[in-house]
Amino acid sequence: MPSLPLPPGSTIGILGGGQLGRMLSLAAARLGFDVVILDPQPNSPAGRVSWRQIVAAYDDFDGLTALGRLADVVTFEFENVPASSAERLADNGALVAPGPTALAIAQDRLHEKAFLNAVGAPTVDFAPVETRTDLEQGLDRLGTPALLKTRRDGYDGKGQVWIRDATDAAEALEALGQRPCILEAAADFRRELSIIAARSQSGEIAVYPLGHNLHQGGVLKTTTAPADISAETEAEARRIAEAILDGLAYVGVIGIELFQLADGRLRVNEIAPRVHNTGHWTQDGCACDQFEQHIRAIACWPLGSTTAHTRIEMTNLLGDDVQAWESIATDPTASLHLYGKTDIRAGRKMGHVNRRRLPA
Amino acid sequence: MPSLPLPPGSTIGILGGGQLGRMLSLAAARLGFDVVILDPQPNSPAGRVSWRQIVAAYDDFDGLTALGRLADVVTFEFENVPASSAERLADNGALVAPGPTALAIAQDRLHEKAFLNAVGAPTVDFAPVETRTDLEQGLDRLGTPALLKTRRDGYDGKGQVWIRDATDAAEALEALGQRPCILEAAADFRRELSIIAARSQSGEIAVYPLGHNLHQGGVLKTTTAPADISAETEAEARRIAEAILDGLAYVGVIGIELFQLADGRLRVNEIAPRVHNTGHWTQDGCACDQFEQHIRAIACWPLGSTTAHTRIEMTNLLGDDVQAWESIATDPTASLHLYGKTDIRAGRKMGHVNRRRLPA
Repeated sequence: MPSLPLPPGSTIGILGGGQLGRMLSLAAARLGFDVVILDPQPNSPAGRVSWRQIVAAYDDFDGLTALGRLADVVTFEFENVPASSAERLADNGALVAPGPTALAIAQDRLHEKAFLNAVGAPTVDFAPVETRTDLEQGLDRLGTPALLKTRRDGYDGKGQVWIRDATDAAEALEALGQRPCILEAAADFRRELSIIAARSQSGEIAVYPLGHNLHQGGVLKTTTAPADISAETEAEARRIAEAILDGLAYVGVIGIELFQLADGRLRVNEIAPRVHNTGHWTQDGCACDQFEQHIRAIACWPLGSTTAHTRIEMTNLLGDDVQAWESIATDPTASLHLYGKTDIRAGRKMGHVNRRRLPA
Repeated sequence: MPSLPLPPGSTIGILGGGQLGRMLSLAAARLGFDVVILDPQPNSPAGRVSWRQIVAAYDDFDGLTALGRLADVVTFEFENVPASSAERLADNGALVAPGPTALAIAQDRLHEKAFLNAVGAPTVDFAPVETRTDLEQGLDRLGTPALLKTRRDGYDGKGQVWIRDATDAAEALEALGQRPCILEAAADFRRELSIIAARSQSGEIAVYPLGHNLHQGGVLKTTTAPADISAETEAEARRIAEAILDGLAYVGVIGIELFQLADGRLRVNEIAPRVHNTGHWTQDGCACDQFEQHIRAIACWPLGSTTAHTRIEMTNLLGDDVQAWESIATDPTASLHLYGKTDIRAGRKMGHVNRRRLPA
């Protein structure tokens, strides 16, 4: 095992070579670390700004062995890391962060909600669904409309279907391929907030101000932060973040999506055990952004300041949105972040822009 | 020739793989560019965070040909680029920025001072020195003490010697190896300021607030910016920067070192046709730092905002200073920037730290 904190010059491994891996790699470089990316796509966005890339599938044992040997600590840009891959990395001498418990819980929506309730983080009501009978009983209890989701996989609105009426039950199960599901009660929510927080190897916790998120077609469009919320809501969100981080003995940055109900109360929608799209505003709003914070946390460094020096509106550049780079570059309030992706496809995350905004 | 502005996905070449190349490469990555470094040292600090490194000497024709073919625009992290190297790059299809005039003038202290005076940028009095007779006549006119410098090479206080008394003339010329020199009158200066400015391919100019520099043993120790100066001094510095940039038809970021005399007037000490150590504060003080600004300028993008959102004290970490990384990381006012250099040598620039400071 490497000695902690990891000194500059140590090597950080990242599973995944997309934009999150790329921004993690750039942050690691600022702190003097070398980075190795493992990704099946050669010349990946993250690989092109890193010391090395191992071209291999995420469950390729030879690739994982090589990564585990090169890296002092290995982390992930996505949550669907096979448990066997994390074990292989650890067997080859690397610390792995976040750890297997956090990954396992975040990979299964039913386990996730059960865990959240157990640590005192409130969620909407839910019911496990394996059969049509389960679903009918669930609809009886939770009412309609209700949201049926696959327990595993699915993101950005995929792998879920709204049930407006109990007679739609069979069709909904069919649409999700008869896989194990979770049924969630509809939340009468006024807005979606999110909180980005970190816990280090030593147990230190740091929490950023909340962001206010707007979606379009199931995909995040903008985050404005710090959000315009009461001190009470801020304190409740921090309490929830700390309960989750300590409950998982978590190491790294986590993204926690929250619904705020009409009466002001918070419900946790889901957690992502990684840096998160709703935390990109920190790059231009805080002295230590979520990417550097994640690197600090997994390297067992002291965590950085999470105070916002500027209010930011982050906007995702999806598909053709990125063609506007030249006009965005003329906006003195805008900082542009592009991911080095060559193929523009509809809805693909190509970059984002952080715009400085006066407090509301 | 590539079409301008260079779109994201274009390739930027950098001659030099040290910390300035590294921070330029990280900034280029944020804007979606790929970077190729040319440096004789394999696995250089900049090469380790870039798409590719060509391992070759700065005057190696094959290496320069390869770089010129890969890159749409090529720039430099140091000013002593051989003119023949810049030509070779241009012959192989790359734009080269800054251009040959700026490089030639910055490489010769005598040409530099003559140019500065010609465009209305005041300097201390000076005299060209090739022989002992030149030197004696120069000392007669400028008085003692006076500073004898080689016309070419030399940096961080090397290649220069103070002459306290006319009888030391022969010894001084000997110490500098009988090379062509420039004799400079002593300036009764109260402090050293510097100004970082940029001019783009389209002629747009952007100027950062001034920094106040302190040296130790001829090497920069700290820069505090924005400096505590009058609006008059700020305006005069901006006028000087614009005159220099337009006079050179310059493209890129330039660093201009200024002496402020006891009576408040400014004298230009020297210019560096590149990003500059005294501009590192912009990384944590401004929305668009000097590295991104340089990439914008050479890619013919609109220039970014130079407004300071935070007052910063930048401190160089020289040699063993870098061993304090762990305690610096606990300082909530500090942002750490390390260069990925493995050998710690006395006086070597290993990194820097930007600390947030309240305005004076």
